[in-house]
Order: sequence, then structure tokens, then C-alpha cells
Amino acid sequence: MHKLVHFPLCPRSRSIRLLLSELEFEYDLEEEKPWQWNEAFLALNPSGELPLLKLAEGPVLAGVYAISEFVDEEIRTGAAQEPDIQGVRTMFPGNRVERAEVRRLVDWFLHKMDAEVTGYLMHEKVYSVYIEGGANPPDTEALRAARENLRYHMSYIAHLVGEREWLAGDKMSFADIMAASQLSCVDYLGEVPWETFEDAKLWYSRIKSRPSFRRLLTDRIAGAAPPEHYEDLDF
Amino acid sequence: MHKLVHFPLCPRSRSIRLLLSELEFEYDLEEEKPWQWNEAFLALNPSGELPLLKLAEGPVLAGVYAISEFVDEEIRTGAAQEPDIQGVRTMFPGNRVERAEVRRLVDWFLHKMDAEVTGYLMHEKVYSVYIEGGANPPDTEALRAARENLRYHMSYIAHLVGEREWLAGDKMSFADIMAASQLSCVDYLGEVPWETFEDAKLWYSRIKSRPSFRRLLTDRIAGAAPPEHYEDLDF
Repeated sequence: MHKLVHFPLCPRSRSIRLLLSELEFEYDLEEEKPWQWNEAFLALNPSGELPLLKLAEGPVLAGVYAISEFVDEEIRTGAAQEPDIQGVRTMFPGNRVERAEVRRLVDWFLHKMDAEVTGYLMHEKVYSVYIEGGANPPDTEALRAARENLRYHMSYIAHLVGEREWLAGDKMSFADIMAASQLSCVDYLGEVPWETFEDAKLWYSRIKSRPSFRRLLTDRIAGAAPPEHYEDLDF
Repeated sequence: MHKLVHFPLCPRSRSIRLLLSELEFEYDLEEEKPWQWNEAFLALNPSGELPLLKLAEGPVLAGVYAISEFVDEEIRTGAAQEPDIQGVRTMFPGNRVERAEVRRLVDWFLHKMDAEVTGYLMHEKVYSVYIEGGANPPDTEALRAARENLRYHMSYIAHLVGEREWLAGDKMSFADIMAASQLSCVDYLGEVPWETFEDAKLWYSRIKSRPSFRRLLTDRIAGAAPPEHYEDLDF
């Protein structure tokens, strides 16, 4: 069985959990706390970043980029070998130009939204509590910036789903998974202004209702409970 | 003809210039200054990031991730259609696991080294001069951190080429291109401690000698001349 090394409230880990579940890869979970510099983990991935996928056959894949593209290649190769599987599902759908649009948006939510929103919130509201034991209050300036930036990203999601069925086109893709992974962490922290972004909320409720999301929504981290609506599919 | 929107001293732009040249794609260059929020450019790529590839057929591809994977798919599809081209060159060589290693290292140099080294140096020594007109001196603390981090990344390059022919394995890959793109910008700013990293220097001199690197080394930006050894292949 493949093993995914993850942290429950890490957007990157969540994106790979959702990807693997959507594509019906079976895997076990192994938890790692990203703020600890665990030697055994660093030996597997010197960058210290989550997630890691330990393949059943031995090799270890590190990071969202390497894992997501590997999984897509695995699927496409399988489909090419068994031509019966015409309707094979991929999370990088479409022709080359359409796939480039999926990747542009994966990049956007994985790096831009993370740097401008989720990274700040996670640091101030989660990691600093574990690292400093809650000795220092959150940096209100960082929280203010993250909340303002979040409105921009919510507008962008609303803009995209105003023009398309899913974020990158007419099929659900890894771009939807990445954006939803970021938002699900922000939502756990009670920070999403759902009421002012109705279109984005409708898109999120569609993806949140998928079976792949179920287990993820039941995860809890010590010391921080999510708001009441967090697990609710009709929020 | 394809058109690449770039900035001469942007490591991301350089990585795609090198990739396209290595794979013998023909393209023209169009310059964009990343610190200006040019409306026409933002209409094409709302993230504001370089580079952009305007394909001759019309579509516009945004960012290193989307462009590099598109180019690789283009090559593989071409090779699949013409089975004669067995020895087709790709910058994502190997089997799926080997390609995952290329991508892990692309990610490392594109994001980690950029965030820890090149981003600081570029901001303090280049962008701030343009944006603030040189009104403020560089932040010495940021420069000190970037220089210390650079030694770590140089060690990592040395470690990798101590075990392998190229960074990700026995073939040159986009990981080499990405690392060299970052280093070439740092070198332009006279910041690479070559003398203490002999193995990394040997690796860099191999890639610097390639025809794809030639045009890049002759680029200059206003107000900042590179050190004397910068263009020298035997530095």
C-alpha cells in the first residue's frame, strides 16, 4: 500500500489526499508535524516540505508538483496500455493548452494564495501556537493582510466560476482541488467570508460534497476546533 | 513565431529561455519590467508573474510550470507521432520515478532557492533601485541572510553532482536549467562564492558553456554591470 506522509491541516497534503482519493488510489496516512525538524523525515525530503508519497514499490516522491504529475502519468500510461479505458479520469483534463490552464491555476492557489493568505493564517493561528506554546499573541497586521488578500482570491474564484463550470474549464481538475484544499484550511480557522461570495460558496459546496472530501472534514488538530459549519455540506 | 515575455535578469524567464533554446524551439523576446503593473500584461496574466509564452497559434501560457510541462508534452507528442525520432531530447528525462526527481529539484530551485536567496538579492540590489530610485540603501540583514542561505544551496548542488552526472540523474534536465538560471542571476550580482564550491563551479561551467546560455550572458540591465568573470566560460 502507498503511504502518504501528511499533516491534517496542511493545504499541500490535503491536495494530494484529495487527488489520490478522486482517482481511487488506495493509500495509508502517516502524520508529520511540519514545524518539527524530524531527522528521519528530512532524510527522505531535505526541503522539509509536505507531503511525501512513499510508493508501495519503494521510491519516495516529494512535494505536490512531483507527486501530482507522477500520478497523472501513471493514469495516462495505464490508459494507454488498456485502450478499453477510454473514459479514464484525470485531474489534468483536456488538450495541451487546456492542461496549461489547469497548471496555471494550480500554481496560483498552491503558491500565490498560500503566500498571500493561508501561510500567514496557518503561521499566526496554528504553527506559532505549537512552536511558541501560545506565548505570543498573533501578529494582527499579518492577519489583517491575510484577510484582505483572501477577499481578492475569493473574487478570483467567483470570477472564474462565473465564466466556467469549474475553475480551469468544463471539467473538474487539480486546480479545483488545490483551491479547495487552501480554502478548507482557511475555513477550519473560521476565516472565510462565505456570505459575501455566494458564487464561490456554490462552487466550494459542490467540491466539498464529494466523497473524497469526507475523511478530510473529520480531521481535527489539537487545540483548535473548526467553526460549526465546517463539516456541514449545506453551510 | 512564438513570443516569450520576459525580463533579462529574472530567473524564471531565464529558465524558459534556456529550455526553449535547448529544445530548439524558435522564439522572439519581448521585455516586461516585473515591478511595473502594466495593464496589458496583467490582462494576459493576472498573477503578474513572468514569463509568458505567446504561442504563434494564439494561446498564451503563463508561468514556468505551465510552460515547461506544455513544452515537454509537445515534444513527447511529436515523438510519439513520428516513431523514427527515438532519441528525442526532453528536459524531463527518464521513467516516471526519475521524472519525479527532476520535478522535486525544479521545485527546489524555482521556489525554495528563489525565496531564500535570489528573491532577496534581486529585491535589494535590483528592484528596489528601480522602484525607489535608489533612495534607500539595501537592507543589510536581508543581504546577510541571502548570502548565508546561498552557501546552503551551493552545498546542496555540490552534494548532488558529487553523486550524479547532472543534478537529477545521469542526463541534463530542467532541474539543471532551473538551478543554473537562479545562479546566473546571483552571479550577475557578483554574489556567488565560487572559490569555496569547486564541484558546483565545475557543474555550472558545463552548463554555462552550452550554446543555449550564450545570448543570456550578453544581456545587461541598466544601472548594474555584472562582474568581469560573469561572461567568461573559463571563470
